[in-house]
Amino acid sequence: MIKTAITAALLAATSPLSAQIIPPPEKVATLRDAALDHDDYAWDIAEGLTTEVGQRMAGTEAEGRGRDWAVRKLRAMGFANVRVEPFDMPVWVRGAESAEILAPFPQKMAVTALGNSGSTGPAGVTGEIVAFDSVDEFKAAPDSAVRGKIVFVDHRMIPTQDGSGYGQFGTPRRQGPTVASKKGALAIIIRSIGTDHHRNPHTGVQRFADGATPIPAGALSVPDAEQLARILKRGKPVTMHLTLVSQNIGIRQSGNVVAEVPGRDPTAPMLLVGGHLDSWDLGTGAIDNASGLAILTAAAKRIMDAGRPLRTIRVVWFGAEEVGGFGGIAYQKAHPEQRYTIAGESDFGADRIWRFGTKLSATEPATYAALTAALAPLGIVNYDKAEANGTDIGPAVEAGAPWLSLSQDGTRYFDYHHTPDDTLDKIDPAQLRQNVAAWTAALAVLSGGIAEPKRSKRR
Amino acid sequence: MIKTAITAALLAATSPLSAQIIPPPEKVATLRDAALDHDDYAWDIAEGLTTEVGQRMAGTEAEGRGRDWAVRKLRAMGFANVRVEPFDMPVWVRGAESAEILAPFPQKMAVTALGNSGSTGPAGVTGEIVAFDSVDEFKAAPDSAVRGKIVFVDHRMIPTQDGSGYGQFGTPRRQGPTVASKKGALAIIIRSIGTDHHRNPHTGVQRFADGATPIPAGALSVPDAEQLARILKRGKPVTMHLTLVSQNIGIRQSGNVVAEVPGRDPTAPMLLVGGHLDSWDLGTGAIDNASGLAILTAAAKRIMDAGRPLRTIRVVWFGAEEVGGFGGIAYQKAHPEQRYTIAGESDFGADRIWRFGTKLSATEPATYAALTAALAPLGIVNYDKAEANGTDIGPAVEAGAPWLSLSQDGTRYFDYHHTPDDTLDKIDPAQLRQNVAAWTAALAVLSGGIAEPKRSKRR
Repeated sequence: MIKTAITAALLAATSPLSAQIIPPPEKVATLRDAALDHDDYAWDIAEGLTTEVGQRMAGTEAEGRGRDWAVRKLRAMGFANVRVEPFDMPVWVRGAESAEILAPFPQKMAVTALGNSGSTGPAGVTGEIVAFDSVDEFKAAPDSAVRGKIVFVDHRMIPTQDGSGYGQFGTPRRQGPTVASKKGALAIIIRSIGTDHHRNPHTGVQRFADGATPIPAGALSVPDAEQLARILKRGKPVTMHLTLVSQNIGIRQSGNVVAEVPGRDPTAPMLLVGGHLDSWDLGTGAIDNASGLAILTAAAKRIMDAGRPLRTIRVVWFGAEEVGGFGGIAYQKAHPEQRYTIAGESDFGADRIWRFGTKLSATEPATYAALTAALAPLGIVNYDKAEANGTDIGPAVEAGAPWLSLSQDGTRYFDYHHTPDDTLDKIDPAQLRQNVAAWTAALAVLSGGIAEPKRSKRR
Repeated sequence: MIKTAITAALLAATSPLSAQIIPPPEKVATLRDAALDHDDYAWDIAEGLTTEVGQRMAGTEAEGRGRDWAVRKLRAMGFANVRVEPFDMPVWVRGAESAEILAPFPQKMAVTALGNSGSTGPAGVTGEIVAFDSVDEFKAAPDSAVRGKIVFVDHRMIPTQDGSGYGQFGTPRRQGPTVASKKGALAIIIRSIGTDHHRNPHTGVQRFADGATPIPAGALSVPDAEQLARILKRGKPVTMHLTLVSQNIGIRQSGNVVAEVPGRDPTAPMLLVGGHLDSWDLGTGAIDNASGLAILTAAAKRIMDAGRPLRTIRVVWFGAEEVGGFGGIAYQKAHPEQRYTIAGESDFGADRIWRFGTKLSATEPATYAALTAALAPLGIVNYDKAEANGTDIGPAVEAGAPWLSLSQDGTRYFDYHHTPDDTLDKIDPAQLRQNVAAWTAALAVLSGGIAEPKRSKRR
């Protein structure tokens, strides 16, 4: 086994991927099935991080406590070269927030500010609601219909297994505030970008375009947005008092936490895997994204436990993803010359993986065949039209890194996404283990071969 | 048909129930199936009340707006003798509330005050958490273990179809605050009496026993209670800052809204049906209890549309149920001599009825057989061990009123009960119609016969 590995190492050093040694299928299957049966690493990380740190808003002291926790944890798990790579970023933070219909039917509503929202100040603002069924309808309205009013943009997000609705359905959040600002609106509230029916509004980032003055921008929970639509249907003028206190606190430090399973061949292109450490501030960031970190860290740890891979596995817990992907950009800036065998990211909850894709299908048919065979027993099918998953590996992929996407079932992801409800109980331990099993199998196939430890020396 | 009805009236006047005329099964079936197919009355009431009034906290101006809405609505629907029967009651109202773990892992938690909670004042209180897995364990603890601390009582509520868990599982809410006060605790927080996993805590009434000074008493949402339990498991001292601002605002007016479908025989014992108009203040009181009002009012309206029943159907929208059943007590005090054929109440959500029970099974076998036959096609089975349903008809039942219980499926009721999530979207229109169909069938069987209107006169 060691001899095979050494041969693999020599081959890999000269011809990084095409000549790599793929571990025997039964070895990959054993590693995969052990993860599926009894992985505890991932749960341990997700449970620990969400319990002992809680929310980890980018650039705040809470994210800093998250980095400290990460360094301790990754070192305790036996990873090498554990360090923080700091970077600076502008930081926006939430304050008090509330919404109340004053007329015609007085009642309180559940609201939360969107990222980079302007502030109403603590006294709030009062305005008449003007409603639109879509951003397109809103864009088409004359400025005079909107000026000085609180714009409400309704819409309806439908769950999809592949999460593909997020791009389309997210438009009110991403574009609405800028359009509202340019038309002279007092404030904007949107129906939450979410698929649930709970009184927990969904936050999320938006950025005012150049030339658009920040105005207060919030999201009502889905039940509240439906309630407001019913109230508006009565045809009477609707007045709302809206308070969204928030502030930009300037440039602060965030950072990426980097850890490694050192490969036997330091010159071989490495495997880059990770997720993001930061979270929105409303929940504890369990499915977004403690689970992603947990899955890939557990998979890397399981390879480490099995022996020494030919290629280095680098695990990155990226900072400040939610508010603009700052961590991924900073990582690539810090490692512009690094070459990769593959880059992979998990950032879509903790439900089961159902398909995978990679461009290796064209260039590395043997590797692709091994991946296909290793993942099929988990119910994971290949998908030719896949794209690279994830904001954090985006800059590396853009710079040429090959990628592997393992796609999770997103049917219930947007029930909890960016809400107070993103808490540990939303992670299904069995599905979490399926994720770890899939990534363990993938890392094993791509490892260049795993040299089992000499037991005598290790003891 | 009219002749039959007159005969029935004469019989009923002398021998109230045993000699009543039961409408032919096919007529009952027609009324029932029409409700099941296309009842709009119930949805219209539930939608209107929750949208145009919203929450209706007992004794507040919001409940008053609810009574105004009720009077308008019931008159518009054609009910007779619509009036408010006012009564006075002590009123407690909620203020600002928040909870935050200060050490060892700083984080915010979702909390709400229980009814009649003492107030922390706006500055809040800070204390060490002392935790117990049950009220029994808490009761057994020495006072010295509790004194000056914030008591946390954990437990786990399991959903049951018949809701029977509420008595047992509700102990921490009903007894916990008094025990905590008597032991000298600074405050008490319990795990919400609820079966969901959302960041929406469950409020509910509790009363400090005589001699127990009110202390701040709140409920954490289920995910927060589980989080606190995990934090406590780490074994380090846990400190919480708790703010529960609330106040007793003295004696205020509430009231019952009474409406009738006048019977052909005013001397015949009437049918008393209803639910409660007030709600907790966190949601819009959709399943607790706009749906209950809606179901029984729709059923009475459907009998009214079909013709004139022998017996008067009295519909009561009771006030101030949630905070101590004041409406039911006031109603009975106002009508001590009133005789009833039956009393029925709906106050357990809007999900399907699955069984029914009444003591008529012993005394009125023909009526009971007709009820059984009329309800069976809706999937409703008889249940010999049933008890009278409902707080509001309780005093009338105690004074001797016969009762009919139609039991709803409570499997998901305690997911939303007393939370911000009790909103219109939790009502399933199809199951709501099944409820209306069942009550319409039951009222038809018990009506003493329905005289169809003379079409010429009505036109």
